[in-house]
Amino acid sequence: MELIHIVENFTPLQDPYLLRKAELLKPVLRHETVFPESLPEAPLGKGDSTVIDFGTYLTGRVSLSFGYTGSHPDAPAHIGLFFAENVRELSKDPAAYHGWVSSSWIQDERLHLDILPANVDLPRRYSFRYLRITVLDTSPKYRLTVKRVSCVTETSASPEALKPYTAPEPLLQRIYDAGLLTLRNCMQDVFEDGPKRDRRLWLGDLRLTALANYASYRNTDLVKRCLYLFAGSRFPDGRISAAVFHTPEAEADDTCLTDYSLLFPVVLEEYLRETGDTEALEDLYGTAMQQMEISLGCVGKDGRVLPEAVRDAFFDWAQELDRTACTQAVLVYALRYAACLAERKGDRTKKTHFDAMARNLSAAARTHFLDPETGFYLSNGQLSAASQIWMVLAGVSGGAEARALMKKTGTILDRVPMTTPYIRHYYTEALLKTGLLREALEEICAYWGSMVLSGLDTLPEVWDPADPDASPYDGSIINSGCHAWCCTPVYLLKQITP
Amino acid sequence: MELIHIVENFTPLQDPYLLRKAELLKPVLRHETVFPESLPEAPLGKGDSTVIDFGTYLTGRVSLSFGYTGSHPDAPAHIGLFFAENVRELSKDPAAYHGWVSSSWIQDERLHLDILPANVDLPRRYSFRYLRITVLDTSPKYRLTVKRVSCVTETSASPEALKPYTAPEPLLQRIYDAGLLTLRNCMQDVFEDGPKRDRRLWLGDLRLTALANYASYRNTDLVKRCLYLFAGSRFPDGRISAAVFHTPEAEADDTCLTDYSLLFPVVLEEYLRETGDTEALEDLYGTAMQQMEISLGCVGKDGRVLPEAVRDAFFDWAQELDRTACTQAVLVYALRYAACLAERKGDRTKKTHFDAMARNLSAAARTHFLDPETGFYLSNGQLSAASQIWMVLAGVSGGAEARALMKKTGTILDRVPMTTPYIRHYYTEALLKTGLLREALEEICAYWGSMVLSGLDTLPEVWDPADPDASPYDGSIINSGCHAWCCTPVYLLKQITP
Repeated sequence: MELIHIVENFTPLQDPYLLRKAELLKPVLRHETVFPESLPEAPLGKGDSTVIDFGTYLTGRVSLSFGYTGSHPDAPAHIGLFFAENVRELSKDPAAYHGWVSSSWIQDERLHLDILPANVDLPRRYSFRYLRITVLDTSPKYRLTVKRVSCVTETSASPEALKPYTAPEPLLQRIYDAGLLTLRNCMQDVFEDGPKRDRRLWLGDLRLTALANYASYRNTDLVKRCLYLFAGSRFPDGRISAAVFHTPEAEADDTCLTDYSLLFPVVLEEYLRETGDTEALEDLYGTAMQQMEISLGCVGKDGRVLPEAVRDAFFDWAQELDRTACTQAVLVYALRYAACLAERKGDRTKKTHFDAMARNLSAAARTHFLDPETGFYLSNGQLSAASQIWMVLAGVSGGAEARALMKKTGTILDRVPMTTPYIRHYYTEALLKTGLLREALEEICAYWGSMVLSGLDTLPEVWDPADPDASPYDGSIINSGCHAWCCTPVYLLKQITP
Repeated sequence: MELIHIVENFTPLQDPYLLRKAELLKPVLRHETVFPESLPEAPLGKGDSTVIDFGTYLTGRVSLSFGYTGSHPDAPAHIGLFFAENVRELSKDPAAYHGWVSSSWIQDERLHLDILPANVDLPRRYSFRYLRITVLDTSPKYRLTVKRVSCVTETSASPEALKPYTAPEPLLQRIYDAGLLTLRNCMQDVFEDGPKRDRRLWLGDLRLTALANYASYRNTDLVKRCLYLFAGSRFPDGRISAAVFHTPEAEADDTCLTDYSLLFPVVLEEYLRETGDTEALEDLYGTAMQQMEISLGCVGKDGRVLPEAVRDAFFDWAQELDRTACTQAVLVYALRYAACLAERKGDRTKKTHFDAMARNLSAAARTHFLDPETGFYLSNGQLSAASQIWMVLAGVSGGAEARALMKKTGTILDRVPMTTPYIRHYYTEALLKTGLLREALEEICAYWGSMVLSGLDTLPEVWDPADPDASPYDGSIINSGCHAWCCTPVYLLKQITP
């Protein structure tokens, strides 16, 4: 799997009509001023540092007031500010990160205060619970005092529609609360994948946050805006990009992931189920159909997806995962949602076509991937949980067979270990689909539960209960500690215990 | 000599009447927008850096515009900005300075650009000719481009009153021009000692910039404002501080230097000679007299200054300099100016008193410091140029004796080497006073000339022609490269070749 996609001379297909509608749907951000529980009392000299705990996870803009003790300052104060999402991040050295993701995501600032006392309104937005202030230098004549620190939070989540949810047990409540806090912090001008990193609208994340959002804040206009952004700026050949930038102007990322593009009709259909919004159906139906046509063009005569589609598929960070079976399955999965869209639109031809294609590709999947001996789907001979999960979600296996398959899958999870909450969500979803409610609940308690039990306030991008420092980026300091695709217990728990 | 003065619980004596007048005299700053000669054409990736040359020395506020090449930026750009006054400073590593002066004076910033293209107006003022931009990180997907850089300069020097000056030879012209550029950059809300460091009003620097200012820009109100600031915030016992802070509010530094305090009546008398300002005489006469009384209180029965006055005297950075003779001389020197002030005020009693004291202390100086064998003044047995210079300037030696003494002094300059342009000024002034015009001109050409010949655009705080990296601060990166007390060729040259 290629980690960094660069398309030379990439010029996205811009649809001003759709982008204008996306702009009009831009949410009004809500603000709240939050103060830390306490401030350091001791004045800070050269080399001293102090950690300020805001008590909870925040996304917003920070203001600080500094004073001094001793003589009138005869030199500027030079200070370092390091914002950390959690205690683990706080323990890392920002200067020590040399991985392949840009270190510029680390929330580490340097600031000169020419005149003291000083009131500083930092211009950037930060996501954090902890703020470490380090005095890089003052002068021997004075010491710095921290007089006031505050954060004006930003979110487009509105609490009005939120119904209180009481989980059947305390651990599940903590998981739910952490999921909701994660979702709220990811809800900004768009659903950001992570408010610290990448602050960007990814389709895979959007699908999951949209589900969590329907189950909580119900800001359906934000989902609509994101759908219009994806449709409004696409690859030159019409494909939906894996991600879209929304500042300074909407522009598709030059990254295309097969499974992400295929989620566009899925997210649209789910949005329409929630809202019945006929305007969105009119505006976005064509783009959704285009995704299906492009993907169906990547299927061989034997009904199998071609390697070119598999090459650009994601599903999970696991490098070793063979993605052929998953890609076959996600296409069947998308075809079922596309058929619903066609029916909604009264497009009987397409409805019939998609139904037929789903049957054909499903049959091809069983022919080519299902191992009659073990009952597992093998992807070029590789046995992985991901392949079983997606075949079940796509309905390639159904009923008792699917239920048995998911039971068996629980015994082979270590074959190609799942590395992200993203694939963990679909695993839990597949357990629920096959009626394995107890197993689904156990998965939530074991996986998401271990996050909150380790002291996290928000749910992270990457989580390995056995190694809290696991990172696909050669350093966990760059991981996103509040990540959209991890917030789905908000949705999943309500499926199990409404 | 103590380098860092800290007075515990220092509460200055504030005079709201005088400070109000100082506030009303605050100058309007003048601005000019300056662009560099050229911009880097190559886009900058991680680790790349580029130096932008503005072609001349500037003090002001900098704006930058950045763009990018490659894919849409998927991570912030993290950049470093290092402003250097001259090429030598540019070659130093800001992180390598660990001297006793605060490293916070080094003009070294770090900045995150969240969205590109970006227009950035830096909030601080910088003094520099060179700006190095370093890309600390971007992402593999894009490179940074520098599209526009500008500096809006700040000065309170107004060119209207400035008469063109043509020096008799090119080197002297270059020295004069560098002096004028230095003076202009030091003229801000007050006469700053250096616009990079310390940006503060020191009395020793004020005396010399005032002289240069009378000979060029003639902004006499700025001198008046500075006199009111010094008088407006003093030591609790009434002494004039060596320096005064003017932001956020006027406040005396808790540093007192005997020779600097004694320059207050000197600067006042010279200001009155230039302006005949009776309001200033009324308002500031009392404070000037108070300085004389305090200093005269530090004289023993034998007419010699007491060690407590000597301990807190400056004259030069030279650590090994015995300052007893200089302190004795500067008191006589100040008495002569104080006598003029008393005469101006019609205060005959004080005039008579100061004249008598000048005679007595002068006689005591000859008795206790003049070595009959060599004709040199010895300070506790130490032979230094500084002692001779100040005895001549104070008129303790006069006429042919003084002239011979200054001639001889030229042969013993290496005994206690002079380390600053400050004492070099008084040396040149003493040569002029004794009619040694050729020697004075030679000194200007040799000392100040070596600065401009080494490529400096402005005249520095510290200069040793044999060691351009000399620094009293354990690292020349922290030296001030544009320093008030070095600008006096603007004044001196007009004394020699008007």
